[in-house]
Amino acid sequence: MPDSALDLASGVRSRQRRTIARALTAVENALPGAADLVDALYPDTGRAWRIGITGPPGAGKSTLTDRLVSALRARGQTVAVVAVDPSSPFTGGALLGDRVRLADRVEDDGVFVRSLAARGALGGLAEAAEAACDVFDAAGFDVVLLETVGVGQGEIDVADTADTTLVVLVPESGDAVQAMKAGLMEVADVFCVNKADHPEAGAMVRALRQMMHLRAPAAQAVGASGENPTVVKTSALNGENIDGLMGALDAHRSRLESEWDALREERLRRRVRRLVEGLWRETFWSGERRQRLAAAVHEMDSAARAPHALAARVLDIQP
Amino acid sequence: MPDSALDLASGVRSRQRRTIARALTAVENALPGAADLVDALYPDTGRAWRIGITGPPGAGKSTLTDRLVSALRARGQTVAVVAVDPSSPFTGGALLGDRVRLADRVEDDGVFVRSLAARGALGGLAEAAEAACDVFDAAGFDVVLLETVGVGQGEIDVADTADTTLVVLVPESGDAVQAMKAGLMEVADVFCVNKADHPEAGAMVRALRQMMHLRAPAAQAVGASGENPTVVKTSALNGENIDGLMGALDAHRSRLESEWDALREERLRRRVRRLVEGLWRETFWSGERRQRLAAAVHEMDSAARAPHALAARVLDIQP
Repeated sequence: MPDSALDLASGVRSRQRRTIARALTAVENALPGAADLVDALYPDTGRAWRIGITGPPGAGKSTLTDRLVSALRARGQTVAVVAVDPSSPFTGGALLGDRVRLADRVEDDGVFVRSLAARGALGGLAEAAEAACDVFDAAGFDVVLLETVGVGQGEIDVADTADTTLVVLVPESGDAVQAMKAGLMEVADVFCVNKADHPEAGAMVRALRQMMHLRAPAAQAVGASGENPTVVKTSALNGENIDGLMGALDAHRSRLESEWDALREERLRRRVRRLVEGLWRETFWSGERRQRLAAAVHEMDSAARAPHALAARVLDIQP
Repeated sequence: MPDSALDLASGVRSRQRRTIARALTAVENALPGAADLVDALYPDTGRAWRIGITGPPGAGKSTLTDRLVSALRARGQTVAVVAVDPSSPFTGGALLGDRVRLADRVEDDGVFVRSLAARGALGGLAEAAEAACDVFDAAGFDVVLLETVGVGQGEIDVADTADTTLVVLVPESGDAVQAMKAGLMEVADVFCVNKADHPEAGAMVRALRQMMHLRAPAAQAVGASGENPTVVKTSALNGENIDGLMGALDAHRSRLESEWDALREERLRRRVRRLVEGLWRETFWSGERRQRLAAAVHEMDSAARAPHALAARVLDIQP
């Protein structure tokens, strides 16, 4: 990192767009100094409202994100968008068109859109996304929209770092059931059934509500507010019921108010765990240890090879 | 686990279907004794040909898997299918229909189909899938087809545990580019452009071949054979050119012959690394350490909180 972490942090705090961009690049790629930057900014975070937006490819997440940006801007809030891995497979290219549309806002200083495709970051994608949100939070953005495709555990973990998690679905056969199986039911604070004019939209809303009643008490406790997620119908394409969706999101935000500090603590705990694991992995697999493992596997009689026993032995080896 | 690991292992070796099913349940859920079972079976593995089948939802993987099962059976080989996370989100329900079709083979002792939805296994989904393949391998199945949806790094890691990795794509706009971005290009040994009668099929084949020429030498070295993946057009639905696909797979298998032992060693090394990390994670986060982390976060002045510094401190704490 050419700039020192402290210089970057100070530029971020005074909301210099170019410095923000540089800080985002640093955390995305875990450049040297990125950890110091995150630590320096951390005390300035905790003010922004982080909304995770997730769901299957083709559910209309990007269009909806665009609508939410407009709605938030209309009431005077500044908005940052972190689009996680827009190069994610098989989105059908719709994303690109939407990004172009968002880029039209380039004249508006109250909006900042950034895509993120971090794979190498210490602590993985979730840490890179959280650090990007920190940068925007410290820069004083009121709301950060964190958009991710809800396929794969890693992507769902990302959505789960938000204060409010919006799961976007489309009324197609089995989508609600698939969402439940994918673990989206557990992370959702608000469900949005997009493409409300679809003939199956009403049935899907009913199916979601029914499933939520069936949630085990343990799963219910996962929701910050302890309440079941709200289900809202929208049509992002036509801009229908965006107000209703904003209302549901705002209501969730209000319910968080009393537990805001506890939630931040809980999130920091989970994050430190991730970082500890990343740090350990980096230090444990020193060159020497890798070599010893390779040698052990190679020299071992193939009839004596046993993956779990070998793992236990490697973990006991001292550096 | 009601049965001892050794009893299960012996039942698996003598190919008792009910014991195989119990062994699969044990490794899928990391039941007590599962590690011993895997270690006991490991010396009996290494004979089966493991073919990973991956690609985006809707590419026709399941139908293709079904065709490959038929082709392999027709030439007298026994086949096991491990369908990883068929409850994966947003497959559109096609999977279920196909599973039903495969289940029609229930009379055929030379076929065993098992789906796997492991999230809690030590070492994650990739370990659970590898252990399931071990069970079938030790039970003497000639070929194991490992089917996974190619979205998300975790899923791609699963496909990468196979000897031969088949990436299935459909000729739709941008699919080839998306595959490259998703990292599928690096793991593919054979590409199958399914739905060959699509007007864009030819263009897609050309695009894939072009991209492979652009692969960096480093990426090329990843392929076991050092050769670029073969591209084959099929129509799984109509059963077209399944012979051509089998030919490409067989050719890759032959190229592996001379390096079979080295590949197995390399795979065991990667696997032991995963297991070491899982084992460490389990032992490191003892109740006491979790509590200390929570207390540290809670007591810390919020202006003094710093995720990375805290992580470094936690890692130094002795149990």
